[in-house]
Amino acid sequence: MFSKILIANRGEIALRIIRTCQKLRIQTVAVYSEADADSLFVRQADEAFCIGKPQVNLSYLNADEIIRVAKASGAEAVHPGYGLLSENASFAQKCIDEGLVFIGPSPSILSAMGSKIEARKTMKQAGVPIIEGVNIPLENEEEAKEAAKSIGYPLMLKASAGGGGIGMQLVHSDEELVKAFAGNKKRAESFFGDGAMFLEKYIQKPHHIEVQILADSHGQVIPLWERECSIQRRNQKVVEEAPSPFISEETRSCMLDAAVKAAQHIGYTNAGTIEFLVDHEQNFYFLEMNTRLQVEHPVTEEITGLDLVEEQLKVAAGERLALTREAVQRNGHAIEVRIYAEDPKTFFPSPGQITEFELPQGEGIRNECAIEAGSAVTPFYDPMIGKLIAWGATREEACTRMQAALDQFKIEGIKTNIPMLKKIVSHKQFLKGLTTTQFVEEYYLPELTTTK
Amino acid sequence: MFSKILIANRGEIALRIIRTCQKLRIQTVAVYSEADADSLFVRQADEAFCIGKPQVNLSYLNADEIIRVAKASGAEAVHPGYGLLSENASFAQKCIDEGLVFIGPSPSILSAMGSKIEARKTMKQAGVPIIEGVNIPLENEEEAKEAAKSIGYPLMLKASAGGGGIGMQLVHSDEELVKAFAGNKKRAESFFGDGAMFLEKYIQKPHHIEVQILADSHGQVIPLWERECSIQRRNQKVVEEAPSPFISEETRSCMLDAAVKAAQHIGYTNAGTIEFLVDHEQNFYFLEMNTRLQVEHPVTEEITGLDLVEEQLKVAAGERLALTREAVQRNGHAIEVRIYAEDPKTFFPSPGQITEFELPQGEGIRNECAIEAGSAVTPFYDPMIGKLIAWGATREEACTRMQAALDQFKIEGIKTNIPMLKKIVSHKQFLKGLTTTQFVEEYYLPELTTTK
Repeated sequence: MFSKILIANRGEIALRIIRTCQKLRIQTVAVYSEADADSLFVRQADEAFCIGKPQVNLSYLNADEIIRVAKASGAEAVHPGYGLLSENASFAQKCIDEGLVFIGPSPSILSAMGSKIEARKTMKQAGVPIIEGVNIPLENEEEAKEAAKSIGYPLMLKASAGGGGIGMQLVHSDEELVKAFAGNKKRAESFFGDGAMFLEKYIQKPHHIEVQILADSHGQVIPLWERECSIQRRNQKVVEEAPSPFISEETRSCMLDAAVKAAQHIGYTNAGTIEFLVDHEQNFYFLEMNTRLQVEHPVTEEITGLDLVEEQLKVAAGERLALTREAVQRNGHAIEVRIYAEDPKTFFPSPGQITEFELPQGEGIRNECAIEAGSAVTPFYDPMIGKLIAWGATREEACTRMQAALDQFKIEGIKTNIPMLKKIVSHKQFLKGLTTTQFVEEYYLPELTTTK
Repeated sequence: MFSKILIANRGEIALRIIRTCQKLRIQTVAVYSEADADSLFVRQADEAFCIGKPQVNLSYLNADEIIRVAKASGAEAVHPGYGLLSENASFAQKCIDEGLVFIGPSPSILSAMGSKIEARKTMKQAGVPIIEGVNIPLENEEEAKEAAKSIGYPLMLKASAGGGGIGMQLVHSDEELVKAFAGNKKRAESFFGDGAMFLEKYIQKPHHIEVQILADSHGQVIPLWERECSIQRRNQKVVEEAPSPFISEETRSCMLDAAVKAAQHIGYTNAGTIEFLVDHEQNFYFLEMNTRLQVEHPVTEEITGLDLVEEQLKVAAGERLALTREAVQRNGHAIEVRIYAEDPKTFFPSPGQITEFELPQGEGIRNECAIEAGSAVTPFYDPMIGKLIAWGATREEACTRMQAALDQFKIEGIKTNIPMLKKIVSHKQFLKGLTTTQFVEEYYLPELTTTK
């Protein structure tokens, strides 16, 4: 096992990784921007180095500087967390070239799964169901219209390199498609440096359900059940849970099989997630693969008792997974909510100084927060300031614990989405487990308008 | 199920009970002394009534006033927590007389188990092993010496109504016994209103291991495994864990059987704990029965996934336990530490104002704290201000998580025993699971002297 690693991330996920390292007696090196100098993760790491200005491209995305610090500090491996450089193939390759272990899959997998068109092709070859659509980049409106004819509207126009909903649009007709094409292609080019566009059949009110897998370098792939992540706002997850209250045991078993097949087909290693869209008849289709730890990994940990960061470290160190599919038991139900520093009505970020801060506590309550009283939430980064996870023996118990915990959560000085989260987790449709990706649009936003 | 209950307690256990009530949608009524007006438990209860001056006998022990508030507020039941009135048979009887459900066993059981001499007799009849000793009150030094002759030194002189080590003394000879007798009898009389004394054979370096049971009013008794609570200072538990790292599966099974037999023999109902002393050869002996929820109940909850307060409420409402002994699975390992507002070197209470307060967080970490930044710790009550619980898939994982969590715990403004707890949970004897009741005297105190 490693004796020292560098964490190329910030906030709650940096803290999360530090905690597992403390448990395993692995020394941690934090890197931070000038805006994060007083952060909890900087204080709790064994060593910490400032790597630049607040802007991510001048600090957390500065691959060369991060690698320099890793080598200078004697770290043997780099944990990229999620977001930032975590799915950047060239960063992973640079780490390897400099003799550092990149805690994640190989650069070639990062690159292949980073292209949605490529990933669709690969999954089709692996026998994993994909959404009807095109598997070649569409160069212009004419090609797009031609492709649309063979599939039929409504369709999703998507950027192959996309993420977070950028470069993505629902279209119902040739006219809408033509109108949407150039703008989304341009956005994809400017955000991801890759303007390749494709089309997928639009699935009505799907569930977003994903399967967590762990794979070692000895050919073992173990599925760790699924997560239901349908509740999203602006294509960003807000509430996640495990297991999914929607799918049958049979569907679950088929989805787990498909995820294992997908990972095996590409020779995946480390922790990864295969995301599926699931329609109302429980047909499921490959959506994309996330080649890193997910924000919502704690719900999987809560129902399995595993420490996913520990498993990532072990696999990266070349160890064999000490698990079997049958041995990974599902115990109870877990729900996670993401706490955003944002206006719950407009979803606009709400930076500022936190004046009072008090975490909820008690049985089944887990906190993953990067802030404290006195912390400043700056406008430079993702406004997610932490996560709250509730476990219960049943889904009902997890829900009621989450409701009470949100009532106890105290953050003063900034706006947060806690009022929105409270509404969601006590909504009768949520309590019934009826959580499609349209949940926020269908139930939260209209209520907001009427109560304004 | 009840729709409203009164909580006849304060601090962390009042909060703990409130949380389960929130989950079950039961309204809560708090009662508080003038010293606790700004407390978290007062704010989080649905209703709260001041019942008197800070001194416990003028507020939290004022049975009549508590019952008056319960009736006036429309509560249907009273949860007594632990300590205070929780094992007071006459309070339980008064509740019943006034048409309130007392959430605990019957007054006759409280009374029978409140007398150690009585309890010893009863357990002997039930076929539960007891420590060699006398089962009649010793009136004077002469009777004591006579009894000592038949058992042999060393002996423990104990008060039948005792608790918390009061009225208890180790004696090695007739001389020591004679010297100790009158003083302890007097202390027992003044503390408990009952000067009955008895003698037990002294067991060298025992383990204190207790079995949690749940019993309903339909004759079912279910054991919820055991807790190892050997680490004590001044006869008060400091660190507890489940399962015990010391006993074999066979001993465990025999102890659980004995606990069930004990509870069945006396017709026990609600949650209860049978405490045993276990010698180095794993012989176990009944020590006493605690007829209420224990401070350390969370470690049992962590390894079973059950909510003990919920089970208490259900049983008190006449429901049948929806459990079987076989179905109560043991999952992983949990450790609890008690956080005391006290000097870690002298064990003297350290009241004061808390200026900064930050709870540890993350996977496997549970907090049960009654304080917050700005809270005052007053000299009127037990100095325990909260509990920290760490769960892990293995004992080693629970230990390392506890160590890291204690490092992250921030309390400023008062002295706490956190430095002591850190030393204990990273001590090599503790890590080996070698935790007898002499642990603090053998390992902690000498180290303190040499490092002073």
